[in-house]
Amino acid sequence: MIQNDLFLRTLRGESTERPPVWFMRQAGRYLPEYMLLKEKYSFFKRVQNPDLAREITVMPIDQLGMDAAILFSDILVIAQSLGVKVDMVPNRGPVLQTATTEKEVASLNVENTEEFFRYVTPAIQAVKEGLYNRVPLIGFAGSPWTLLCYMVQGQGSKDFGEAKRFILNEPQRAKVMLEKITEATIRYLHIQIDSGCDALQIFDSWGGMLSPTMFDEFSLPYMERITKAVKDRVPVILFAKGAWYALDKLNAAGASALGLSWTTSPDYARELCGPETVFQGNLDPTVLLASPDVVAKATKEMIESFGGGNHIVNLGHGILPTTSVDSAKAFVDTAKSYYY
Amino acid sequence: MIQNDLFLRTLRGESTERPPVWFMRQAGRYLPEYMLLKEKYSFFKRVQNPDLAREITVMPIDQLGMDAAILFSDILVIAQSLGVKVDMVPNRGPVLQTATTEKEVASLNVENTEEFFRYVTPAIQAVKEGLYNRVPLIGFAGSPWTLLCYMVQGQGSKDFGEAKRFILNEPQRAKVMLEKITEATIRYLHIQIDSGCDALQIFDSWGGMLSPTMFDEFSLPYMERITKAVKDRVPVILFAKGAWYALDKLNAAGASALGLSWTTSPDYARELCGPETVFQGNLDPTVLLASPDVVAKATKEMIESFGGGNHIVNLGHGILPTTSVDSAKAFVDTAKSYYY
Repeated sequence: MIQNDLFLRTLRGESTERPPVWFMRQAGRYLPEYMLLKEKYSFFKRVQNPDLAREITVMPIDQLGMDAAILFSDILVIAQSLGVKVDMVPNRGPVLQTATTEKEVASLNVENTEEFFRYVTPAIQAVKEGLYNRVPLIGFAGSPWTLLCYMVQGQGSKDFGEAKRFILNEPQRAKVMLEKITEATIRYLHIQIDSGCDALQIFDSWGGMLSPTMFDEFSLPYMERITKAVKDRVPVILFAKGAWYALDKLNAAGASALGLSWTTSPDYARELCGPETVFQGNLDPTVLLASPDVVAKATKEMIESFGGGNHIVNLGHGILPTTSVDSAKAFVDTAKSYYY
Repeated sequence: MIQNDLFLRTLRGESTERPPVWFMRQAGRYLPEYMLLKEKYSFFKRVQNPDLAREITVMPIDQLGMDAAILFSDILVIAQSLGVKVDMVPNRGPVLQTATTEKEVASLNVENTEEFFRYVTPAIQAVKEGLYNRVPLIGFAGSPWTLLCYMVQGQGSKDFGEAKRFILNEPQRAKVMLEKITEATIRYLHIQIDSGCDALQIFDSWGGMLSPTMFDEFSLPYMERITKAVKDRVPVILFAKGAWYALDKLNAAGASALGLSWTTSPDYARELCGPETVFQGNLDPTVLLASPDVVAKATKEMIESFGGGNHIVNLGHGILPTTSVDSAKAFVDTAKSYYY
């Protein structure tokens, strides 16, 4: 049914003619046409309005021709669904009401999930129409630990020191919070699948800021529960940025593919997880700030380092807003012309 | 001659009664008495004036009793010595004139090193007097790659995208710059040793932002040249934050000890480098934001994870300014009461 199913075949572990390519944050900020929409409509309007969600999600596919689309949204919608106020402040990023006291954590409301996400089905259906079966659609959510980071810190941070202080001083309360985020996330992902998403990715953006023992306690179990709850319906990609030390455990959690940061070499990852594991990544997003010829060369070397299969070409983190469309295109074109 | 030589014995690979303890950035920002000096004197006055350098370097030894002192200074002094203007802007951090054009890179002046650092000998002599042989004094410098990051970016950054774009687009010019920084650093470190430093640490704060292949090209060779130039005079600790993938190579470069980030487990590090390697670290600095009893427990667990020897207790990165003196003290006291 989907014309270009290269991405899904790779996720199933099949041998393919070339690696599929997409990139994290591909729907948005480096595209001039997106920036015009951004000026005109609020962030949550862009996420919730079906016409805008379709336009933004499909835009990179029309312009650059990746092998998969990813739904335009944000990981913080789960915080909203639980009852936490989230503002996207221009030139500053997200600002959240925090939830740290016993009362605040108790008031997080999982039962509101379906009601809150009633915009999702029309949005995804519109996106699917816009894609008219050209490529698969990826849905996504943040990991519970990453959500907790924002819900405790109240904003982005270099070290999420407040979030770590919270889990160290109040581990039991933190776990109540992680349980609630996990449950809401599972419900949200089922809605995404019901509405037509063909695969899912879980972003643990700040997992790699935890020591291995803290990762095992505060991030991994929740990602594992989410994965187990949905993996029989669609393939799941787990991406814990910087958590190189946990790749084997993430693999054992039931992922169809693992996202790799650019500091994690394919050799190391394959040694840890075995030769059959599908990896996604891992060019340093700052490499795309270089000129298109430098990008093409670096992309080719990166693809070669994965050794010819079980590989989805991507960046090691989201594309940077200052990336030129020409360099993004050099990245995509290099992958699309690389035949094994 | 030095009364407490536990730190130096550990660096020599000797079996010791307990692990020595110090922490990165221990001279400064979390101590209220330092903050008073900071209000009164400019950053470079504090570094260059012998009385202030002594007071600030010795202060943590008097208050918390670490097993080693580290000279109060900043890695950016090398940029200054090469002719780059550096301002420390309150609430913003360092702001540097950048050096990226061929002409700017050509004008970086290594021959000025000794003249620029003429303040170092009186400062170190004053510090040594203040320590009156209680504990050893650690001198330090930044790695050439980390210096280049600031000299190209002109300020701190989440991703040092400009610095990476520069080395990708202009690799030859970048290497001319790295050579000059390396040469100036070697000269500077010899001055530190001549003046009385008992050991050295090289901080590659942003090495772990590079992919392994880029690290091998743009950071490792320069750290290796510096290490080889001074290691027969004093022991050298190499700390490349986050560069877990390069520990074996850093070890082969001639370090007496390797600093570990908190995401790098001692088991992994020892497997890569061998059981005789001395490691330094690696508690997550944000753990010190927790209450003293939580800090004590986490510190004990961290020490135990190193298995009883060849270990210098430290953090995985510099202490955070928001750390309470009580929690810093809990960290130091736990190490000092831990007998193998």
